[in-house]
Amino acid sequence: MLNFDSQGLMPAVIVDDETGTVLLVAFMNQEAYQLTRESGQTHFFSRSRNRIWHKGEQSGNVQDVRDMFVNCEENSLLIRVKQHGDAACHEGYQSCYYRRLLPDESYEIVAERIFDPEDVYGTE
Amino acid sequence: MLNFDSQGLMPAVIVDDETGTVLLVAFMNQEAYQLTRESGQTHFFSRSRNRIWHKGEQSGNVQDVRDMFVNCEENSLLIRVKQHGDAACHEGYQSCYYRRLLPDESYEIVAERIFDPEDVYGTE
Repeated sequence: MLNFDSQGLMPAVIVDDETGTVLLVAFMNQEAYQLTRESGQTHFFSRSRNRIWHKGEQSGNVQDVRDMFVNCEENSLLIRVKQHGDAACHEGYQSCYYRRLLPDESYEIVAERIFDPEDVYGTE
Repeated sequence: MLNFDSQGLMPAVIVDDETGTVLLVAFMNQEAYQLTRESGQTHFFSRSRNRIWHKGEQSGNVQDVRDMFVNCEENSLLIRVKQHGDAACHEGYQSCYYRRLLPDESYEIVAERIFDPEDVYGTE
């Protein structure tokens, strides 16, 4: 049985099924988990927007679930996906982890942008 | 600047630097993050034990940090490590995600055990 935390959430690591790249970590509540299972596409609970979020709902870069794994404590998930649009990050990169953290706490971009966020989301 | 959540925590995905396998997800608070940076070995904050946890402190299976990445929102980390003892999971598997979640919500073990937890942690 899955153990959601005291806030009803569970982290899920999303991995590209073809390349093995870690794309993102997001949180699921029970409803997001059920929607993911029923639809076959990832759904999360956005803590900042306080609502369910169908990954790719705006960009079209949805994620088809290929495989799911549960950890020893049954309090987190690893989900292998087919990433549509080749980019999971709203900043236009394949992975949300496109910056290396350097010893002086600065960042170094280590990936190529796949799309321009303005083209996909418009200007803010 | 890293954004810890309302509970002062941030999820960290730990990846085996040699194989690319996702080993575990755990949480860091500011202190665990600082200890990780200063020592070069992963430290987490255990929500169940409410204390800092030096990964491998009991088993000896420590993790040397090889590389760190931050996500777009600066609220989670991806850390590539050298895993000592070849197993990150206290159940004796390389990865904590050693069970596939099947459509009927049952689990299927998909990995080989590397050590017997009783040998490492004793009987409970």
